[in-house]
Amino acid sequence: MNPVNVGLLGLGTVGGGTFNVLQRNAVEIARRAGRGIRISRAAARDYDAERLPGIEAVPVTTDAFAVVEDPDIQIVVELIGGYEPARELVLRAIANGKHVVTANKALIASHGNEIFAAAGEAGVMVAFEAAVGGGIPVIKAVREGLAANEIQWLAGIINGTGNFILTEMRDKGRDFAEVLAEAQRLGYAEADPTFDVEGIDAAHKLTILASLAFGIPLQFDKVYTEGIGHVTRADVAYAEELGYRIKHLGFARRTAAGIELRVHPTLIPERRLIANVNGVMNAILVMGDAVGPTLYYGAGAGAEPTASAVVADLVDVTRVLTADPGNRVPHLAFQPDALEEIPILAMDAIETAYYLRLCAVDRPGVLAEVTRILGDQGISIEAILQKEPFPGAAPERVPVILLTHPVQEGRMNRAIQRIEALDSICDRVVRLRVEYLDVD
Amino acid sequence: MNPVNVGLLGLGTVGGGTFNVLQRNAVEIARRAGRGIRISRAAARDYDAERLPGIEAVPVTTDAFAVVEDPDIQIVVELIGGYEPARELVLRAIANGKHVVTANKALIASHGNEIFAAAGEAGVMVAFEAAVGGGIPVIKAVREGLAANEIQWLAGIINGTGNFILTEMRDKGRDFAEVLAEAQRLGYAEADPTFDVEGIDAAHKLTILASLAFGIPLQFDKVYTEGIGHVTRADVAYAEELGYRIKHLGFARRTAAGIELRVHPTLIPERRLIANVNGVMNAILVMGDAVGPTLYYGAGAGAEPTASAVVADLVDVTRVLTADPGNRVPHLAFQPDALEEIPILAMDAIETAYYLRLCAVDRPGVLAEVTRILGDQGISIEAILQKEPFPGAAPERVPVILLTHPVQEGRMNRAIQRIEALDSICDRVVRLRVEYLDVD
Repeated sequence: MNPVNVGLLGLGTVGGGTFNVLQRNAVEIARRAGRGIRISRAAARDYDAERLPGIEAVPVTTDAFAVVEDPDIQIVVELIGGYEPARELVLRAIANGKHVVTANKALIASHGNEIFAAAGEAGVMVAFEAAVGGGIPVIKAVREGLAANEIQWLAGIINGTGNFILTEMRDKGRDFAEVLAEAQRLGYAEADPTFDVEGIDAAHKLTILASLAFGIPLQFDKVYTEGIGHVTRADVAYAEELGYRIKHLGFARRTAAGIELRVHPTLIPERRLIANVNGVMNAILVMGDAVGPTLYYGAGAGAEPTASAVVADLVDVTRVLTADPGNRVPHLAFQPDALEEIPILAMDAIETAYYLRLCAVDRPGVLAEVTRILGDQGISIEAILQKEPFPGAAPERVPVILLTHPVQEGRMNRAIQRIEALDSICDRVVRLRVEYLDVD
Repeated sequence: MNPVNVGLLGLGTVGGGTFNVLQRNAVEIARRAGRGIRISRAAARDYDAERLPGIEAVPVTTDAFAVVEDPDIQIVVELIGGYEPARELVLRAIANGKHVVTANKALIASHGNEIFAAAGEAGVMVAFEAAVGGGIPVIKAVREGLAANEIQWLAGIINGTGNFILTEMRDKGRDFAEVLAEAQRLGYAEADPTFDVEGIDAAHKLTILASLAFGIPLQFDKVYTEGIGHVTRADVAYAEELGYRIKHLGFARRTAAGIELRVHPTLIPERRLIANVNGVMNAILVMGDAVGPTLYYGAGAGAEPTASAVVADLVDVTRVLTADPGNRVPHLAFQPDALEEIPILAMDAIETAYYLRLCAVDRPGVLAEVTRILGDQGISIEAILQKEPFPGAAPERVPVILLTHPVQEGRMNRAIQRIEALDSICDRVVRLRVEYLDVD
């Protein structure tokens, strides 16, 4: 089947990320969507071709309206941002019968009601997963995944810049102004940080989430919005002393009298998972009457995380355009004829780190024997703990705990066999695996 | 539009929860789905009518096959569990042209390839969000939300019973057998706990997640599965001393040689968010090449959390059956003509707890004046901290920190106005809001 033709407006951070993800994962994306997704035309005032390998094959114009008028384009991706001309471009694309994908939270929060009405009339789709929480599929979760629930409240860390600043204030005991300057140097904060630190960006996102949760029209102008500029490092420290963390929270709650919609610095008990979401990461905690609390965590900004959501929307639209409705989303995520027969590894072949607990006779030379056996198998040791015998256990038998660096399981099995054969080892070796789950 | 007719197989824990959620949230669910979703017939060997208000209006048979053959039923919900007769019922329903929703992970992990092939032939949908992670919409997240990514690995705490046992062993220093007995008393563990503590249930779920992530056929028999029965409270304590938590993890990773698929007790660095998922809660951490790490957290079992996922699938199927493809999911989650005009509250009307930082002159009677003003407004105090002056600040001016119980913001504003008018208060009051985000 022919690839679907996409017109891309904007080749900046998110536009460039979207182009690169579509290029790099083209095969895998087509296996999921049922056909290729191709940027057939793009519009940008200027762009850095070195960051965009393959862009030379795409006609790039400076006239975004030429793309939305192009009869060959089926889906327009708006990644320019801001209110105008984004609004006009999106409305023109819809009028021309094109589906639209956008990451523009300001546009959706402020003009979404108008845009969705136009899309309804024209019978086209408008998708905006990237508008909230970057790469976290939280719009899909609230709109589809939690559709059974009366949603009672939701709370989100939905501005990475603000969370980075508050995290640094806490971790390093530094003041707001100092951390803001650093965030600007690192590129986490804009030269004009108003949208982030005053909470306007978070209010845009909260507007969207509240509509999805409660079934109300978008009402950005009703959101109470307070920034984090007046929070001092002393407040962060006092809050900690009281058992709380300060987070810039978007909060929406259904009450008998009406709906609360507010963005402000908020003290949260430190034992909550969301209180431990740090740095530029985002998380949204949603309370439903049936499901209880669920939480969605991930990168809320950045080129490729945001592109991840944009491309997910492209796949959604492509699946609807392509498949019969009875098979909109393939059962196993990839199309049935696109499953692969990749071998599943035997455990001997996997590689991981290990925790070993040995029962050793407490006499000289035991540790030397054990470490020699490990060394012979090329296994290096990260930590050793020698413990007192447990109350009630024989006094000459002591637990020895070893933490190893990663090694193939086959080698570890051979080492354990030899260790268990030692006279000085008094029981089977307990072997647990260690995974660092390194996400940094 | 007429409601869609659902045949419900099973009225046990999850079946009863599904019935109750559909009854209680019927209006809201119809606002989202575009039409009602009605249990028009059910099958159960026996059931407790007192737990199921409204069940008297539904014809209940003991013959599940009668439901599957009923020409009025459009969607069959299979909540019987186990391999047979669930497999035969699902295949019969598909052969009869009915869509299927199931929560049965054993069935999907073991017979999914056969079931999906049959569904593809018959042109019907088979949905199974409830099969992994209970109410967490993680199948939707991996299958649709992360469709842009080459998924590199995923790690899940996907058995609540196992996580409850390990959490109790750590928190209370108790042994496996003792905690298992308590879990059985509390109803968290079955009388035969094999599926949970041996990792078989987790292996079923990992099988499904790995297929969605990597585009491979379901291969339950290739999962390496190790239980938690050999983990002692000493291991839990030693791991903690080394900076780790022990979790029963399902882990799938793509390597150059093939795919690792394994369930075993695993040490995880304690600073990872997933290491802090405790009790019966589930969480799945997914690493994509574009989005980076994302995490999905919530209740992995229980009547209404699982029902939340079953009903979400029913809404998905209903939306596809009902709407033109161009508008499968409404933009704002609820149908455009079903949005409500609920008032958004003014900030004066919202209720929350507060953190106040006062600059007070350090002399007798100041605290009495402040607490009297708060008392006059009906504001009660949870904690007071009086701090040393900051280095460099005037020595007679000291910060006083107050934490209040929840109160309406209007009252708090009046109190702050009066506090700021006191001679003994030397600066504006810093006021931050506290949200407990109570999820327990």
